[in-house]
Amino acid sequence: MADDGNGFGRAAAKVDEARLWQRHVDMARLGGTPRGGVRRLALDANDIQARALLAEWARPYGWAVAMDDIGNLFIRRPGSDAAAEPVLSGSHTDTQPSGGRFDGIYGVLAAFEAMEAMEAAGIRTRRPVEAVVWTCEEGGARFPMGTMGSGVFVGRTPLEKARAVADYDGITVGAALDAARAALPGVAHRPIGSPIAGYVEAHIEQGPILEEKGLQIGVVTGIQGSRRFLVEVEGADAHAGTTPRARRRDALSAAVAMVGALERLFHDDPSDTVRFTVGRFVVTPNAPAVVPGHVAFTIDFRNPEPEILRRLGDQVDPICQANRGQCTVIVTQTSGGAPVHFADRVPDAVEAAARGLRLGHMRIFSGAGHDAGPLHAVAPSGMIFVPCEKGISHAEAENATPADLAAGTRVLAETLVDLAR
Amino acid sequence: MADDGNGFGRAAAKVDEARLWQRHVDMARLGGTPRGGVRRLALDANDIQARALLAEWARPYGWAVAMDDIGNLFIRRPGSDAAAEPVLSGSHTDTQPSGGRFDGIYGVLAAFEAMEAMEAAGIRTRRPVEAVVWTCEEGGARFPMGTMGSGVFVGRTPLEKARAVADYDGITVGAALDAARAALPGVAHRPIGSPIAGYVEAHIEQGPILEEKGLQIGVVTGIQGSRRFLVEVEGADAHAGTTPRARRRDALSAAVAMVGALERLFHDDPSDTVRFTVGRFVVTPNAPAVVPGHVAFTIDFRNPEPEILRRLGDQVDPICQANRGQCTVIVTQTSGGAPVHFADRVPDAVEAAARGLRLGHMRIFSGAGHDAGPLHAVAPSGMIFVPCEKGISHAEAENATPADLAAGTRVLAETLVDLAR
Repeated sequence: MADDGNGFGRAAAKVDEARLWQRHVDMARLGGTPRGGVRRLALDANDIQARALLAEWARPYGWAVAMDDIGNLFIRRPGSDAAAEPVLSGSHTDTQPSGGRFDGIYGVLAAFEAMEAMEAAGIRTRRPVEAVVWTCEEGGARFPMGTMGSGVFVGRTPLEKARAVADYDGITVGAALDAARAALPGVAHRPIGSPIAGYVEAHIEQGPILEEKGLQIGVVTGIQGSRRFLVEVEGADAHAGTTPRARRRDALSAAVAMVGALERLFHDDPSDTVRFTVGRFVVTPNAPAVVPGHVAFTIDFRNPEPEILRRLGDQVDPICQANRGQCTVIVTQTSGGAPVHFADRVPDAVEAAARGLRLGHMRIFSGAGHDAGPLHAVAPSGMIFVPCEKGISHAEAENATPADLAAGTRVLAETLVDLAR
Repeated sequence: MADDGNGFGRAAAKVDEARLWQRHVDMARLGGTPRGGVRRLALDANDIQARALLAEWARPYGWAVAMDDIGNLFIRRPGSDAAAEPVLSGSHTDTQPSGGRFDGIYGVLAAFEAMEAMEAAGIRTRRPVEAVVWTCEEGGARFPMGTMGSGVFVGRTPLEKARAVADYDGITVGAALDAARAALPGVAHRPIGSPIAGYVEAHIEQGPILEEKGLQIGVVTGIQGSRRFLVEVEGADAHAGTTPRARRRDALSAAVAMVGALERLFHDDPSDTVRFTVGRFVVTPNAPAVVPGHVAFTIDFRNPEPEILRRLGDQVDPICQANRGQCTVIVTQTSGGAPVHFADRVPDAVEAAARGLRLGHMRIFSGAGHDAGPLHAVAPSGMIFVPCEKGISHAEAENATPADLAAGTRVLAETLVDLAR
């Protein structure tokens, strides 16, 4: 493969660990929290500013920057064949409400760094390579729809459906997108969903396995499936001091009974492979002296096995109904995704790159959802994991080392050179 | 008692049912909600406006209007003996976050109407009579301290302690009071806690008993005791898709276990006299894909029996500790009040007035807390209850009839004439 001047390892050798780290530091200022985390919600001012900063970094290279109608941002390094479908790499710039400095943004910065490394190495690829920011990956952090930008890109979600989604303050994605568009006047427009040749996403593992095994690279083979539910419990507001229990329709009491029963159902010791989380729980009117008349809570349920997803997920509604007491309850499945198994092409390329660079690696299955999930439906896709401290993620304490971030980026650079030949 | 020209029934005869109802309608506009309730939180713009409106209504009568340092408002109808301690009557203008049109405001408007009726009847009392608005009766609706204004008035709570209390947005009572002061430039200032001769408070029952028995008047003999707690559960934020249950420190899961165990402890079928409510439950970061790292919830526990208050209340902390799982928990008792038993003077006067007016009445114990609780520590105090529809209160559906409100006001007017002789 050396005949095109792109001999193995030349791109990796130009990955600049200090520059990559500094870019993480710069991005972490956009929405940085006092406790060292990041709060950069999808399409908020900081998330838009992150796009502007990337566009600024691209300018010295003369790389074209474009945004599509769902706010996905693309930075294009041309290939020698202008008609060839591009290879994409990226992730997301949005975070959880009290998120960390690496989830998502690492994949974007790694893609950008890989393109810079190719440039520094003078590598010519046949296909264009694009660094991409997918809009609103973090479902429910602001808008209750995850992998929104990638989902629209691949045609899984109609654009108008995504634009109609409202955040908890009633602001729609459409309104937020229009504001983003206005704030980025120098960024060109491009249509949604042009064909691509492949997709690779670098990401922190968000789990403890690589750290525990002392390996720098996870060759991701797939993503576990998920079902998410919204449970709305309706009772009646009442006076806490005067209303006998027999006359109460206490929505919190019913919701607590439901969560308790669901936890028993989803308990799977000792295997502990079922992921069941009630992460959002909103009480109305939420006043100490009022028996609550309304509770809404979310269920995030994930598993690698379709059969377990079906069997346990189908019991959510009956369990809630059985524990509603004097209240009524409506259970809605808000999203669901089958487990993803990546085709061999990208994982094999990632593995070959890790081996070639003599980096400790293993095949690994992703517990978290990622934009690579939707992308896998339209092109060979895969992911590269690097360790994060104690497996902590979706938290301000999230941490990763400059060396591990650079190692993953070296593997990414070589993988992109391979895929873009 | 007719020798002073104040013969029984003359004040009651001048109570104007239509005027009293219209004043309720006018007040319900201040913070009125689309569903027919009222949201007028302590010292918010509507609550200040309610004081301004009362002052405006007082002006034609030439009655002095004054406010003390905790925002309690006093409207004074003079007596023949300027040196005599006044008799007070009133309640509060603040509501629950989604409260009703009668809780609190009825007692204020009934006192004002009773003074108007005395005026119309040409009744002279020896003692001054004052209609009073007590600041922030509804604990936790905005500021986490109930019967604040009356508590400061009687010396139970130091002014500076009350001023330092902050709402859920961090705004202190002190800052809100300064804004109220500035918004009411025409209202005189007066010192806190001058001596009083007695206190009578009219209020909707907030329970179903009078309605069920077909009686218009409750002669309130006391108020049940209460203990309120704040429970703060600390775990660790974690990724919902990747973190095994064995590694989680899920604050919501622990809080749900605590509430479930507490509900079992406080269950007292068939007597159903224990009032146990978790009314406020706040999850952080409250995002669907994040295992919650923090939950804070309140417990409102009330009972007429000191022994039950002690025995069950003392088990709150051990029960929470036993159910904390991998989290830590801190339980704080935020307030507590022993049951109140009013001295005979005022209940006897209320009962005599109801009997004299031939209104169906009964002695009744209050499940809800009221400003009459603190007042009872410094002067003979009591209350008059009127029915409310289905006993519903602390809810937008709260309702009462013009006829019942007027009947309670007639009893109040005669009681005030009696106490102010």
